Amino acid sequence: MKAKALTSKGTRDFNSTQIFKRDFIIDCIKNNFNKYGFSPIETPSFENTETLLGKYGDEGDRLIFKILKSGNFKKNVENSTLLSDNLNLISSSISDKALRYDLTIPFARYVVQNQNEINLPFKRYQIQLVWRADRPQKGRFREFLQCDADVIGSKSLLQEVDFIHLFSDVFKSLKIPDCKIRINHRKILIGLSEVLKLEKKLIELTVILDKTDKIGKDKVVIELIKLGLDPSLKPILVKYLSIDDDFINSISTLNNLFKTSLVGLEGVKDLNFIYSLISSKNLGKTKLVLDTSLARGLSYYTGTIFEVNTSDEVNIGSIAAGGRYDDLTSVFGLNDVSGIGVSFGLDRIYIAMETLNLFPKINKTKATVLFTNTNNKHLNYLLKGVDYLRLNNINTDFYPDVVSLKKQLKYANNIAVPYVVIVDDNEVDSSSYCLKNMSDGNQQILSIEKIVEILKK
Amino acid sequence: MKAKALTSKGTRDFNSTQIFKRDFIIDCIKNNFNKYGFSPIETPSFENTETLLGKYGDEGDRLIFKILKSGNFKKNVENSTLLSDNLNLISSSISDKALRYDLTIPFARYVVQNQNEINLPFKRYQIQLVWRADRPQKGRFREFLQCDADVIGSKSLLQEVDFIHLFSDVFKSLKIPDCKIRINHRKILIGLSEVLKLEKKLIELTVILDKTDKIGKDKVVIELIKLGLDPSLKPILVKYLSIDDDFINSISTLNNLFKTSLVGLEGVKDLNFIYSLISSKNLGKTKLVLDTSLARGLSYYTGTIFEVNTSDEVNIGSIAAGGRYDDLTSVFGLNDVSGIGVSFGLDRIYIAMETLNLFPKINKTKATVLFTNTNNKHLNYLLKGVDYLRLNNINTDFYPDVVSLKKQLKYANNIAVPYVVIVDDNEVDSSSYCLKNMSDGNQQILSIEKIVEILKK
Repeated sequence: MKAKALTSKGTRDFNSTQIFKRDFIIDCIKNNFNKYGFSPIETPSFENTETLLGKYGDEGDRLIFKILKSGNFKKNVENSTLLSDNLNLISSSISDKALRYDLTIPFARYVVQNQNEINLPFKRYQIQLVWRADRPQKGRFREFLQCDADVIGSKSLLQEVDFIHLFSDVFKSLKIPDCKIRINHRKILIGLSEVLKLEKKLIELTVILDKTDKIGKDKVVIELIKLGLDPSLKPILVKYLSIDDDFINSISTLNNLFKTSLVGLEGVKDLNFIYSLISSKNLGKTKLVLDTSLARGLSYYTGTIFEVNTSDEVNIGSIAAGGRYDDLTSVFGLNDVSGIGVSFGLDRIYIAMETLNLFPKINKTKATVLFTNTNNKHLNYLLKGVDYLRLNNINTDFYPDVVSLKKQLKYANNIAVPYVVIVDDNEVDSSSYCLKNMSDGNQQILSIEKIVEILKK
Repeated sequence: MKAKALTSKGTRDFNSTQIFKRDFIIDCIKNNFNKYGFSPIETPSFENTETLLGKYGDEGDRLIFKILKSGNFKKNVENSTLLSDNLNLISSSISDKALRYDLTIPFARYVVQNQNEINLPFKRYQIQLVWRADRPQKGRFREFLQCDADVIGSKSLLQEVDFIHLFSDVFKSLKIPDCKIRINHRKILIGLSEVLKLEKKLIELTVILDKTDKIGKDKVVIELIKLGLDPSLKPILVKYLSIDDDFINSISTLNNLFKTSLVGLEGVKDLNFIYSLISSKNLGKTKLVLDTSLARGLSYYTGTIFEVNTSDEVNIGSIAAGGRYDDLTSVFGLNDVSGIGVSFGLDRIYIAMETLNLFPKINKTKATVLFTNTNNKHLNYLLKGVDYLRLNNINTDFYPDVVSLKKQLKYANNIAVPYVVIVDDNEVDSSSYCLKNMSDGNQQILSIEKIVEILKK
């Protein structure tokens, strides 16, 4: 049977140029993670299903890729189970592993499993693939790389301050201008639900609020009334929706709104503290703004939440995000540990950098020189030259077959190698090699030592 | 429901020290791949099932992890299918994707899918995870990293020569002594099956032959007679088994044995050519030896095959392997393209380097300095120092909470950060910081600029 040569839906191959560009971004992020004192960990690509399920909400559970048990996956499974309409029941019988959906839950599992080995506060970064059974679209794939940094075991708001600074440093290194870090606090959202008397509909409330940008404030009011908002409380909602991104004004408005909500006031106090420390820092071209409509999808956040967008010119949603999650490790049996983390989305940053033309010049090969192969009788002489260059750490390739020089030079051109070495009778007789610069066509007959000297530059 | 904090069977977490050690090996291999003119590609973690199934033999198929279709995986699946005993039938109905089993088949798929973009000969390297539903044991995991380099589109035996040299260069960079590259040729195995009149039992023959090291030559003879070897041909087998690793003697023995096998003679000729070029090369402490019992499990090899072992002191099987595969891409519809490649097994190299104590000193953090936090009123002064060091690209961390200095120094010790900065009234008053060297306990009161100078060294 001939198989179609086709990647699976929502996944991608990467060629060398794409990898070098991705590595450019990854190195930048990694260097900043190191600069901020984070150390790397890695976790397996798949986890026991029970580790992942129930941590990301129903929608998340649906998007988790489940792996069929190896061997006889039907063993001990009742026929009635197989024939039932309960997909969860069937899948939990025939599958016991699932692909990583994000890096945070595996990290929480790591912390608990390795608690005797780690020191709190534990600062880790993790740059690994995650998989989601999403419908693919621009900037959204079924396999993608996340670059996460988290601190676990510290309630200090200095972590929030540090992450905001880290965001700005990463985007400074990547030279992405006009990034906007939107910040909000789950306690502000809870506070709002309290003053609107919609405590029991917090999730629905935040989902509607999160759409403010798309549907407009009036629509938000209408939808919340539909949700059960007492019309007499409408003025409070309107006031909340009128908050703009001026930090100091907003804080005082929020303090007024939340007079009857202790938890709301706590959220405001946290943001105020963070802002007071950030205002003395230099965030370069990145701006921190309050966005009281920001909700963040993942259900485990409990404190500050962040989302970062680039300029409107790049229309791809957020390129980084994060937040504080109290007590995430308790689902694995370790209580009272607060964590906070951020995640950079490589693919969207890549799209942003392409759109804004921010990548440095990147060659598609790291080979510096290609030896052409024009005469079998000179094979040993050719290989001697190749070996000598490699011994001197010059990335060197050779053409493996004796075909026309024209064809070999065309190949050299196609793979974009900057230099070619040509060997023929003349060169062998004079113990030299002919070095051709592929960008200007210049040729020089030189000793191999001289060639090393030139190529090392 | 509380989930157990436990990695899935056969998979592992890696802490920072392990990652730095793994990176040391990976960087070494990658640098050599670059030096030999290979460029990177990456393929997705999962492929359409039809891309992988049927390429690795029955055993391979069994070990491939299959991913459940997302959404309603039972849609359009007959009840009779679900209840049947045919596991392949069921899994192909409810699963359409599978995790990468090796890097070679996805590479062949890549070449065919991207044939208009690549130039032949195409030299690529690929350093990615693969997954096998194997029973875990020492040095064998269900998720592991392979480091592959392949050339596709070149029949030249110079590729074989170059790969042998590459092996030796990688092990030289890693300082692993006494590696032995065992080489054989599938055509020699076919030749043997011809002269033993066991053509139709080639696979069984090679499986038995491959066990020579374990069971001994006498047992091999017995098993082959059981397999159907005509006892009158036993002298030929005995002669074959008597071949030692002296290349030149062996070549002439093989030429004699294969007088009636054209294909056998072709194999001998290839090995002879390869050896003639290798003998003039400096392989350092690595040795190339002929091993006519070597068979290699994967069914797609058609020419030379390699396996590399370290010294007997490290008892973990082969640490690298490879071979030539003619026409692998034809399963995806692209004919007449020969390829050859090698694969380095990171985990076994890691074990070898640990056993032989070959890793350089590796710190568990890349942070250079930790600021302690002893008084909230000095917070701004502390952060100013932190920012200044980071601005000068010094990896800097700070302790987030005001707790006893003793506790903070203990933490610094545990995370193995080389320097600590202490800030208290004295320092703030004199616009300085106290730098403590954690290895000798030495403390100095210094300006922040002076600290940068010291830490940059």
